[in-house]
Amino acid sequence: MSLDAVLARIDQDQPAALDRLFDLLRIPSISTDPAFKPDCARAADWLVADLEGLGFTARAHETPGHPMVVAQGGPVAGAGGPHLLFYGHYDVQPVDPLDLWDRDPFDPQVQDGPRGPVIRARGASDDKGQLMTFLEALRAWKAVHGTLPCRLTILLEGEEESGSPSLIPFLQAHAAELKADVALICDTGLFQDTAPAIVTMLRGLLGEEIVIRAANKDLHSGMFGGLARNPIHVLSKILAGLHDETGRVQVPGFYDGVTELPDAIRAQWQNLAFDHAKFLGDVGLSIPAGEQDRTPLEMIWSRPTAEVNGISGGYAGDGFKTVLPGEARAKVSFRLVGQQDPEALRIAFRDWVRAQVPADCSVSFAEHGASPAGVMQITHPAFEAARAALAAEWGRPAAYVGCGGSIPIAGYFKTHLGMDAMLLGFGRDDDQIHSPNEKYDVECFHKGIRSWARLLAQLT
Amino acid sequence: MSLDAVLARIDQDQPAALDRLFDLLRIPSISTDPAFKPDCARAADWLVADLEGLGFTARAHETPGHPMVVAQGGPVAGAGGPHLLFYGHYDVQPVDPLDLWDRDPFDPQVQDGPRGPVIRARGASDDKGQLMTFLEALRAWKAVHGTLPCRLTILLEGEEESGSPSLIPFLQAHAAELKADVALICDTGLFQDTAPAIVTMLRGLLGEEIVIRAANKDLHSGMFGGLARNPIHVLSKILAGLHDETGRVQVPGFYDGVTELPDAIRAQWQNLAFDHAKFLGDVGLSIPAGEQDRTPLEMIWSRPTAEVNGISGGYAGDGFKTVLPGEARAKVSFRLVGQQDPEALRIAFRDWVRAQVPADCSVSFAEHGASPAGVMQITHPAFEAARAALAAEWGRPAAYVGCGGSIPIAGYFKTHLGMDAMLLGFGRDDDQIHSPNEKYDVECFHKGIRSWARLLAQLT
Repeated sequence: MSLDAVLARIDQDQPAALDRLFDLLRIPSISTDPAFKPDCARAADWLVADLEGLGFTARAHETPGHPMVVAQGGPVAGAGGPHLLFYGHYDVQPVDPLDLWDRDPFDPQVQDGPRGPVIRARGASDDKGQLMTFLEALRAWKAVHGTLPCRLTILLEGEEESGSPSLIPFLQAHAAELKADVALICDTGLFQDTAPAIVTMLRGLLGEEIVIRAANKDLHSGMFGGLARNPIHVLSKILAGLHDETGRVQVPGFYDGVTELPDAIRAQWQNLAFDHAKFLGDVGLSIPAGEQDRTPLEMIWSRPTAEVNGISGGYAGDGFKTVLPGEARAKVSFRLVGQQDPEALRIAFRDWVRAQVPADCSVSFAEHGASPAGVMQITHPAFEAARAALAAEWGRPAAYVGCGGSIPIAGYFKTHLGMDAMLLGFGRDDDQIHSPNEKYDVECFHKGIRSWARLLAQLT
Repeated sequence: MSLDAVLARIDQDQPAALDRLFDLLRIPSISTDPAFKPDCARAADWLVADLEGLGFTARAHETPGHPMVVAQGGPVAGAGGPHLLFYGHYDVQPVDPLDLWDRDPFDPQVQDGPRGPVIRARGASDDKGQLMTFLEALRAWKAVHGTLPCRLTILLEGEEESGSPSLIPFLQAHAAELKADVALICDTGLFQDTAPAIVTMLRGLLGEEIVIRAANKDLHSGMFGGLARNPIHVLSKILAGLHDETGRVQVPGFYDGVTELPDAIRAQWQNLAFDHAKFLGDVGLSIPAGEQDRTPLEMIWSRPTAEVNGISGGYAGDGFKTVLPGEARAKVSFRLVGQQDPEALRIAFRDWVRAQVPADCSVSFAEHGASPAGVMQITHPAFEAARAALAAEWGRPAAYVGCGGSIPIAGYFKTHLGMDAMLLGFGRDDDQIHSPNEKYDVECFHKGIRSWARLLAQLT
């Protein structure tokens, strides 16, 4: 029962594991702010040293931005189990507004929380605490077994919070070194704070800006009102027509490439018993507003959307001006799923808008990004191994879940390294990542380490 | 042929009349800027002196703001013709941006224009040049006849360009002194630059601001998009429903109190041969966008409107944010005609909006003014006298026209003095009032003076 020994070692080493995480959390590795460039380098060096202590050959590679930590270790492939790539990021978000923090964000401390002790610091959850769960699992494994469990490549990025400018060139330049059987990405959370979850569906994103132009200047609504075209009216009609009464998007061809949920996934999601009333209630809402024949989880995970993210036109300041404006603008984004083609959809959307613009008005568009949905292939045995391992640790079935937002790294691994990725993590919704008073539950850190140990035992 | 003598005197005195107007134009009586308060007082004093020179008993009444010039003169009522009140304003708009002026705005000069000489100065058209047309007509009349033509009260305001804060209290306090048979207001223009016109229909105005609130904070559109209500969508649907496909406003009861155009007025308007293609073409448009069964002139003069004057919500800056905003706002104004009741309409509009707000959203409203339409009674013989006088001077029929904007003074005379008002003036569309390089055509000044002389001759 070597797994039991590893788990016991993890439990016993927990105080020291916290000390190590605190060392890393004390380094203010804010990647967006050039003032912290030396701190980012220091965090990379800290990780290189820690990985070398685990028997890895590790190096902090220079990039035009912050270093990329790459480490190779474990038995050669074929000697036992798969070759795994683990990805995490050591950079953190800025801390302002600093006065909303209860304490120094880079002086970590275990504090009491309503649900138990929490690790309070910037990066505790996103992503230093999460990436250390994997390294601590390896440390315990090595202490018990004397070796790493399988061939492992570690990739720790320092620019995730600033748009990952160096990532794709680095993946391309180091493809041979980084390619593994499957990637493990630890930057996500539990489902509803308690259930282990593996993200297998990530929505894509298409961003468009529309400008409707009518008169060649702002007009006086007394002199021209009722005769001259009001571009806010034109824009409102277009936006109001984005969805029909049932919430279905009306752009022709919009649902091309949208696939129905596989029965197995649908069954898992039903078992999740998603509490949409609480999810909406926490932000002051109560009514699922999407496609009326879909479940709330489908609305946020597996169905495409059209949302207006911003609108402007005419006078929006204090008081009132009877202006009939010359133009009106909107920013519209589409979340994409399945095989929806962002570029084809961009063309379809623009055509659909143009067809609704009166002959004496004009419309122009600006692009704001286009990325397809990510649908993880779950055929690699690591996926079912992970589900079993997570279920054993958390006492609840692990589910394949969706993620409404975009996590581009998974797509990059597929595109540039031809490798499937498994996203799993132990964050909770109240971790306040990107906000003041970020925390990571000690329970999540501890059970996260144990989860990885169980997963590695399953795989090898 | 005493009218001929008066007209000859006007022609002969034209250089001196220009000199007098220039004296008044040199006084920078900007009412909104406290730095020019002494100049406003100086302009009032200048007018008192000029009116006294015409035989009036004149006085600059102190107000909390700028002085109100009131003068009484002419034979007592009943001795011949009606008792007329003349209204104009001696204050002017600010001049900034000063660098867009070709010359000092308070150093008037006659310059060549594409259509003949123009008087270039702030206030040349709005309203010093216009008010002086009446005083110069009286001057010529007095020179020929030795007396004023009828009993006359003159009211010259110094706060018209700054919201007339002292006007209603002054009208109430001086009602007995100011009440006459009919009021003449000289602050409007010619129709399409050539046809004399008397404004008999002024649209009213109702201003409303709507705020739709959904979530209690801005949400991430990846996490919540497709499930949570987007208030921009709610607002767009409401605004898109303001008009049906034919341009008719959909608020229940909106057309209550809207009257059809009298046949006589309709016939006059048909004769005006309004060139809507040019009117719209000048601002880059071509298609009349109002109620499709109405003529363009009806759309701007005699039909009520609903216009969105401003809209905002979510992220409107550079770039893109995938925010799902907590609220969205719009400013909506209604131009009112006939007997439409602004307060009843406010209630109807709010009820109509509320009925469309989803149960988990809220809506709040802010008031931005409410004034009914002004419909001038044209039964007083002064109206037909004026039409005949104007037609004789301009060689074209004078028409009763509408005015899409609001000129509150006419309504105040009706409400507070029980007196109908006749609005006529000689401005042209390119006078650039409220803008740099304001001008008044010398022809308009000259023929304006002659128009008043003819009108006074018709009336007495």
